[in-house]
Amino acid sequence: MLLTILYIIGISAEGMTGALAAGRHKMDLFGVMFIALVTAIGGGSIRDVLLGHFPLTWVKHPEYVILICICALIATKIPALVVRLESVFLSLDAVGLVVFSILGAQVAIDENLGFIIAISAAVITGVFGGILRDILCMRIPLVFQKEIYAGVAIIAGGIYYGLLMWAGLNALICTLITLFLGVLMRLLAIKYKWSLPVFSYNS
Amino acid sequence: MLLTILYIIGISAEGMTGALAAGRHKMDLFGVMFIALVTAIGGGSIRDVLLGHFPLTWVKHPEYVILICICALIATKIPALVVRLESVFLSLDAVGLVVFSILGAQVAIDENLGFIIAISAAVITGVFGGILRDILCMRIPLVFQKEIYAGVAIIAGGIYYGLLMWAGLNALICTLITLFLGVLMRLLAIKYKWSLPVFSYNS
Amino acid sequence: MLLTILYIIGISAEGMTGALAAGRHKMDLFGVMFIALVTAIGGGSIRDVLLGHFPLTWVKHPEYVILICICALIATKIPALVVRLESVFLSLDAVGLVVFSILGAQVAIDENLGFIIAISAAVITGVFGGILRDILCMRIPLVFQKEIYAGVAIIAGGIYYGLLMWAGLNALICTLITLFLGVLMRLLAIKYKWSLPVFSYNS
Repeated sequence: MLLTILYIIGISAEGMTGALAAGRHKMDLFGVMFIALVTAIGGGSIRDVLLGHFPLTWVKHPEYVILICICALIATKIPALVVRLESVFLSLDAVGLVVFSILGAQVAIDENLGFIIAISAAVITGVFGGILRDILCMRIPLVFQKEIYAGVAIIAGGIYYGLLMWAGLNALICTLITLFLGVLMRLLAIKYKWSLPVFSYNS
Repeated sequence: MLLTILYIIGISAEGMTGALAAGRHKMDLFGVMFIALVTAIGGGSIRDVLLGHFPLTWVKHPEYVILICICALIATKIPALVVRLESVFLSLDAVGLVVFSILGAQVAIDENLGFIIAISAAVITGVFGGILRDILCMRIPLVFQKEIYAGVAIIAGGIYYGLLMWAGLNALICTLITLFLGVLMRLLAIKYKWSLPVFSYNS
Repeated sequence: MLLTILYIIGISAEGMTGALAAGRHKMDLFGVMFIALVTAIGGGSIRDVLLGHFPLTWVKHPEYVILICICALIATKIPALVVRLESVFLSLDAVGLVVFSILGAQVAIDENLGFIIAISAAVITGVFGGILRDILCMRIPLVFQKEIYAGVAIIAGGIYYGLLMWAGLNALICTLITLFLGVLMRLLAIKYKWSLPVFSYNS
């Protein structure tokens, strides 16, 4: 399955970048693996817990837990390389974000929930891992302040839902179109620093 | 239903004040809507997840998600007005707090859980939205430090449970009495700065 | 049951040390009880929510909620004594950590989940209460930075699983051996400041 392969690539990349975030806060190897796991599979876990969708993916596939821990440990050995390959990791992260969004929307569709909840599930799956990582590292979640990220998850979830449920296309075609458009949008957002308006208020 | 109307007013007010909290940390519009949603429906979500009570309210009623996002966006357009109407929002928040507590206690009662869990469910529903908002904005939750707030949720949950389960009154009458006493207590606590003793310790 | 008695001792000790953490941040009595509850039963709650294992322990046994609140209030009256008895509390905490790990692993075994998830459940039960306490007190979780703590939970979970499922020993004997080895390891880690390698990186 294409989605499974891309999902595995996505959680591996998220695990490695999560490990680097832990390294910036001088955590021990348990902290590194914990932050990597939370970054990679925290979003899907929150989605499944909120939708009552058991068992969670990593409970059914414990090998993903092992994989992410190994990726995190590798990242601690080659942090400079991971940073130098930033553009590769940003691309893998973009693929991961869209894959997470598609999988999130699909869970909602499987449970016969409608458009709004499919988009909510897409965005929760796509961004909550990063939010949990930032909370554990004591910083305001990046996703609330930087260039368009959650917006990609929302739009990817919406495109996938629309193509599948309204246009009636086959799931593989929906996945490919959503992947192409979502990753393109994310990469353009990074390149041209597209961002949402910021609301700044001091009373 | 009276409770449903008051609940909708409560989540709208919470969404608007949540949006202002986001604005104080210069978040983008996604961050504003996310904080608004967490503030308004985070407490009820945590309660339902802890009690295994699925589906969650907003999953069954996605229109609440839309409503809160709209309220948050409106708040970004009129922040000065929201601040100027502080006393109105404090009153709406007081109504929301008591309504959330009643709904929380009712969920526990529906699941045949006893007095202690009914009070726990009331206080989780009433205060956890604000706790999550404060964690996402990187500050020690206000509810642990300011005038009596969680105490109102505890007492409102207790009054409602007692009137319904021990005095055997009709649910509407229990709701009205609890609302009156709970909102009164909260407004008096604000006016006279009633607060719990503080435990301060440095080892 | 030995485990139940040790569990009750463990949550009581965790509740008292959680209360002290709240006192260091000048919280009111609600905050003190809330932090105590989160520290003592937060880890088990997260485990059960992630595994879809309902009802949660404290929902089935609300008397634990009362017990922890009482312990927290007692701690606010005798904070200097709790601090002076630090080595007693560290020992009780070590017992609590291993008991939580055994109970976590047992939940996974009861649900026919394998070795990896049993260890994951052990470590989530053992360390997540402290992680939530630290997040609510706005500091990077201690468990990511100090001497071996999560490692004890992982090894205790692994020993218990191995003795029970692979060596086929009786549950009481598995519990006693795991308790002895786990508590010993934790106390040695404290005495000799054993810690995992730290990953420190600045890009």
